[in-house]
Amino acid sequence: MPEVYLAKGTRDFLPAQMRRRLSATDQLREVFTRFGFEPLDTPAFERIETLTGKYGDEGQQLLFKIQKRGEGALRGEVDQALRYDLTVPLARVVAMNPALRLPFKRWQIAPVWRADRPARGRYREFVQCDVDIVGTDSLLAEAECLAVASAALTALGFASFTIKLNDRRILAAMAQAIGASGQEGPLLVAVDKLDKIGRDGVSAELASRGFEPAQIDALWRILDAPAGNDATLAHLEAHLPVPEAVGGLRSLLGLAESLGIPGDRLRIDPTLARGLDYYTGPVYEIALDEPGMGSVAGGGRYDGLIGMFAGKRIPAVGIALGLERLLTVLEERLGAAVERPAAAVLVTVWDEARQAASLAAVRTLRDAGTPADLYLGELALKNQLKYANGRGYRHVVVIGPDEGAAGVVSVKDLASGAQRTLALADLSAALGTDLA
Amino acid sequence: MPEVYLAKGTRDFLPAQMRRRLSATDQLREVFTRFGFEPLDTPAFERIETLTGKYGDEGQQLLFKIQKRGEGALRGEVDQALRYDLTVPLARVVAMNPALRLPFKRWQIAPVWRADRPARGRYREFVQCDVDIVGTDSLLAEAECLAVASAALTALGFASFTIKLNDRRILAAMAQAIGASGQEGPLLVAVDKLDKIGRDGVSAELASRGFEPAQIDALWRILDAPAGNDATLAHLEAHLPVPEAVGGLRSLLGLAESLGIPGDRLRIDPTLARGLDYYTGPVYEIALDEPGMGSVAGGGRYDGLIGMFAGKRIPAVGIALGLERLLTVLEERLGAAVERPAAAVLVTVWDEARQAASLAAVRTLRDAGTPADLYLGELALKNQLKYANGRGYRHVVVIGPDEGAAGVVSVKDLASGAQRTLALADLSAALGTDLA
Repeated sequence: MPEVYLAKGTRDFLPAQMRRRLSATDQLREVFTRFGFEPLDTPAFERIETLTGKYGDEGQQLLFKIQKRGEGALRGEVDQALRYDLTVPLARVVAMNPALRLPFKRWQIAPVWRADRPARGRYREFVQCDVDIVGTDSLLAEAECLAVASAALTALGFASFTIKLNDRRILAAMAQAIGASGQEGPLLVAVDKLDKIGRDGVSAELASRGFEPAQIDALWRILDAPAGNDATLAHLEAHLPVPEAVGGLRSLLGLAESLGIPGDRLRIDPTLARGLDYYTGPVYEIALDEPGMGSVAGGGRYDGLIGMFAGKRIPAVGIALGLERLLTVLEERLGAAVERPAAAVLVTVWDEARQAASLAAVRTLRDAGTPADLYLGELALKNQLKYANGRGYRHVVVIGPDEGAAGVVSVKDLASGAQRTLALADLSAALGTDLA
Repeated sequence: MPEVYLAKGTRDFLPAQMRRRLSATDQLREVFTRFGFEPLDTPAFERIETLTGKYGDEGQQLLFKIQKRGEGALRGEVDQALRYDLTVPLARVVAMNPALRLPFKRWQIAPVWRADRPARGRYREFVQCDVDIVGTDSLLAEAECLAVASAALTALGFASFTIKLNDRRILAAMAQAIGASGQEGPLLVAVDKLDKIGRDGVSAELASRGFEPAQIDALWRILDAPAGNDATLAHLEAHLPVPEAVGGLRSLLGLAESLGIPGDRLRIDPTLARGLDYYTGPVYEIALDEPGMGSVAGGGRYDGLIGMFAGKRIPAVGIALGLERLLTVLEERLGAAVERPAAAVLVTVWDEARQAASLAAVRTLRDAGTPADLYLGELALKNQLKYANGRGYRHVVVIGPDEGAAGVVSVKDLASGAQRTLALADLSAALGTDLA
């Protein structure tokens, strides 16, 4: 191992992995465009004032801060920081571009940086994939977010998932109903662990945080809603004074179904407690229906955040796909798939005197749109074939004295060993059929 | 203007510009893949030791350095820096991945960061687009670089350009021939300005830098080569003792033509003096044949750089496309092209009672692969049509009481004003034909 290392918590993406990442982001782009979302990109770093105070004390510690150039460096001053998420930059863009037509539907797939302690699956540079709709109060926007995320998961090959829905106002009313308005934070942190630690675990955690047994009992009377979305909503309506939130979720179920999400994928879940600080209305999370997979997307309405720089209320709703997690699952599914080079065909070079014929062949293939590689080393033909096998090309093209004299090229299928002789003009069509 | 700003020297890319950038990089990816180059990505920041001492004093000053987290921050210590180019990270990747099969052909399109003084067209965050071939001494690698760059320019719509070729060893021999071996740097800096300041300007600059009139005369006797590649090469061969370099260029011309580059695009140019510190063999530059456009790509062989971390000689050759420059030219050519949204169709919403029919229509379009937007605001239909006109949709779909009763949808072409009534099932096909 040479004496050179990656920065802690960062990764290189070598070709095999990079091709899979590009293919996934291509699929996502296609879906986002089909749903009318627009691309946006923002710089890797922002002025430090733009990011300071936006992510709480913990987030603030995780910012990668950039040292000032020039004299400021001597004093250890910083003036910029790498972006921590894609939402604060979006708010800045909205404030700086008052001519932007609202509602503005944007997608962004881009890296963010956090100085977290690296762990398995947790990196300091990772890609976020956000779609947001800025500038409308309509519940149609929530429905669009659920529909685009569902289509995105389907496009990536995830066929089976469940969308859990709740509303920030239901969570707040729940805290109030059990006399714990001031303790909403700890209450919901505990409830959020229900999947992991179970009902008794949540009760024990609440007790240890000072909740009274009567409060805990009252909480379970609300959370123990009957199954089925209609019944769950009726139960919540009966227990909590938030008709707008409950009515909104009822409408959202209908809108989401109209946009093509099967009703049995949608589940009202009063225990869904996410992103408490800034959500203001419906919240949702998508989990793959495979055991242990957990959440792969989440979002909600956050009407207070996007207007922070513009100095006015700008309603917004969004959903973030857990792209790094989804990519990891896709990689695991692929398992030990054979790695192949970008081009499926290697054109060999017989010797220097016959080089031009090989160059003409590779050129003909590429001109016809067939990705083709040219052997660039100094090996003899026999070893070029070994090299081609080792790298995983599917075909090699050979043009030796016999082929040259006959004005043809030989093509060998490396899997079957079958060899054919063809006119150069027919090569691309022949390989195209094989490769399709 | 609100009180929030971009970091100095950085840009946002709003949807219109972002779509053009994505389209250009898609075209480049297609070309690079067709030529058998593989994708690679590396982190935005590297350990500061990896970057220090690689870019000269000037480059070192331009690094964006990241402050240590934790206690180091109090002392103003830095441990990482944003990448300054894509070449040093490539050298690190090659060193850290000894199993990588050579020759390794990779492309990378990614931002780099330099704390340069911002100026018109010069940013602190900008995208580099590099293709490199690592691990072969063969001149075929140079030819591949010229061929892939030519194909890339052609794909982007640049039909007319000239490839200038020279060799680092010719430049070194020239300095030696006029008795200025130790002053190769200033000599070539002056020669490099020939296009800008003309022959007299170069002579004056050389005189001011202490070159003797006899040296300057001797220099022009070498540089004043007769036109035509064969004649130029014969002239250089007669004046300089570097047969390998001259012979290499002669071969390279032939190889490049065999790979499909028209001979009249290739020009041996002994005044081409670029990137002197690390090139070791052939160097080249591509200029658009429009006045004042200057260089849009450049590269050469650099056999000493990629092995720096691996501790051994690893030959390499590459070419970088000036992507930001090319994008600027493309943008200028587009001029005041009408900006259109990601989707060409807006499905309007008549009223809340008829919402479901509009949702079904947008869903049908998207399921058939037609990008379609749904109106998400609260405006009345008349104003939805104004909004659609303003944003530049080409078609709007309307489903009101009449359409609902008849089980059809209305489609209006916003350019012609023509309106049609169709079955929902026929909508995507009808719009698809119009949009094609």
